[in-house]
Amino acid sequence: MTTREDIEAAWRRIEPYIRITPTIRLNRRLLDTDAEVFLKLELTQVTGSFKPRGAFNRILSNSVPPSGVIAASGGNHGLATAYAARALGHRAEIFVPSLCSSVKQQGLRDYGAELHIAGANYDEALRASIERAQQIKALVVHAYNQPETIAGQGTCGRELDLQVPKLDSVLVAVGGGGFVAGIAAWFSGKIRVIGVEPEKCCCLWSAFQKGEPVNTAVGGIAADSLGGSRVGELAWEICRERVESVILVSDDDIRAAQRWLWRELRVVAEPGGATALAALLNGAYRPSPSERLGVLVCGGNADLSSGVF
Amino acid sequence: MTTREDIEAAWRRIEPYIRITPTIRLNRRLLDTDAEVFLKLELTQVTGSFKPRGAFNRILSNSVPPSGVIAASGGNHGLATAYAARALGHRAEIFVPSLCSSVKQQGLRDYGAELHIAGANYDEALRASIERAQQIKALVVHAYNQPETIAGQGTCGRELDLQVPKLDSVLVAVGGGGFVAGIAAWFSGKIRVIGVEPEKCCCLWSAFQKGEPVNTAVGGIAADSLGGSRVGELAWEICRERVESVILVSDDDIRAAQRWLWRELRVVAEPGGATALAALLNGAYRPSPSERLGVLVCGGNADLSSGVF
Repeated sequence: MTTREDIEAAWRRIEPYIRITPTIRLNRRLLDTDAEVFLKLELTQVTGSFKPRGAFNRILSNSVPPSGVIAASGGNHGLATAYAARALGHRAEIFVPSLCSSVKQQGLRDYGAELHIAGANYDEALRASIERAQQIKALVVHAYNQPETIAGQGTCGRELDLQVPKLDSVLVAVGGGGFVAGIAAWFSGKIRVIGVEPEKCCCLWSAFQKGEPVNTAVGGIAADSLGGSRVGELAWEICRERVESVILVSDDDIRAAQRWLWRELRVVAEPGGATALAALLNGAYRPSPSERLGVLVCGGNADLSSGVF
Repeated sequence: MTTREDIEAAWRRIEPYIRITPTIRLNRRLLDTDAEVFLKLELTQVTGSFKPRGAFNRILSNSVPPSGVIAASGGNHGLATAYAARALGHRAEIFVPSLCSSVKQQGLRDYGAELHIAGANYDEALRASIERAQQIKALVVHAYNQPETIAGQGTCGRELDLQVPKLDSVLVAVGGGGFVAGIAAWFSGKIRVIGVEPEKCCCLWSAFQKGEPVNTAVGGIAADSLGGSRVGELAWEICRERVESVILVSDDDIRAAQRWLWRELRVVAEPGGATALAALLNGAYRPSPSERLGVLVCGGNADLSSGVF
């Protein structure tokens, strides 16, 4: 299981390539709570999401063959892998499902990756990518189910811990589970880590219901960034012990959180990036009056022409 | 002249109402410089710009008559005054010129202000607002030429100083001069404060050329936030001593900086908010390799449907 030492080691590896993303304390009068709420604007990370933390750590921890690296992704992990490969001088092939937004597809090309549109969802893109990686003997950079990925994502928790000491709790959006597992591994039960998932893609919530990872349907407005159909085995090992609970939010709640972030903070988040905050804004998560709560705003690769903002 | 003590006093007054806005250190590889560059994301301030710092300080430093407060503004100062008035329980009338964007006009209505469209430019709106204030005996909240305003804006410099100690220099966009004067008053010559103005509205640059405030033409894409036609007398007193130089940037440079902020940081800045950074990105300001440089990104009330991003 991923340890704090793994995360410290990941941090030393990736530090030259990524950004320390800022936090902002919200005014108390902004929310109907006396709790202190801190947003971590991880969407200002290179490539617009937390994903480069894991991608850089995976690539820097392994020797990369001349055929380069391969990743499957709804978009953000692909952007991160393509960016990291270019920064480190490797070639990259990225497999995305057709639901990957045109904004993200264009970004992948801009980073110089060979782009493959493969299948209708993440799972189909993943299968195609694994086949291709075996053919050309490339290094697979998995979106969430590799120890290096989880340790890399954990550096975001380490960073938040240094920036805002003595938090009581943190809200984290969940896709395949790598991010929440990394955060939970860092905090190791010292504070409450709460997962937040869209009702329409909720693989961690389903795993808690069943007591083990299960296949779940994937849909809704955050599917391109949170659309894991089954929580990763490595992530599950950590989450079952270290994640206190999972809250579900509706697509309407997510849209409302996106609009709130733009109206109140001039922050443009994509649906997956606004999902953790949605659980606070819709009242599903109620902090105690003296609580110090962190909320990860983890992705900003939004389509500005969507009419949401 | 505004002192550091005035700024400390302003901070104590306004602190319950405003946000400490975050800073972010840019990756060295992102810019063609070895300097350390820190952006202060002041556009995450309440109402989307630095303006509430001055507006709250002005209102909280005076007794407000039942007729409330009046401000003239290209938009951001009006939003700040309307927001502050509402938060403090006063009525507000805001005078804007017709160039005030529809985004800002809607925001003014949302904050409950009585909105007057008055004249083609800021000066005409200002004249109308002063007349009206005399009629109804309201408190005038000037956009830049009052001591309380300058001290309030100076709190942004104080905050940056605490967040990023030992800066060598800071780039600040200039409209009527209140913001740059506040920043310069805080740093009091200890670090270099450099003003940045659009070529098409450059009242501080013109004042330095002539040795005194002069009337200048106002135009270009940042006119709604930086369109002061003549630097304020109070600001000039400070700037002539404490601002090292003024750099001019073109509208194209400003657009490029807006696009760069979105592409690299997922930050949406309005033209005036991206103006200081434009001087770094276009090479007009070249930091030394060991320099620690702050750049204020001071406004985010952009029109997302503009096609810029």
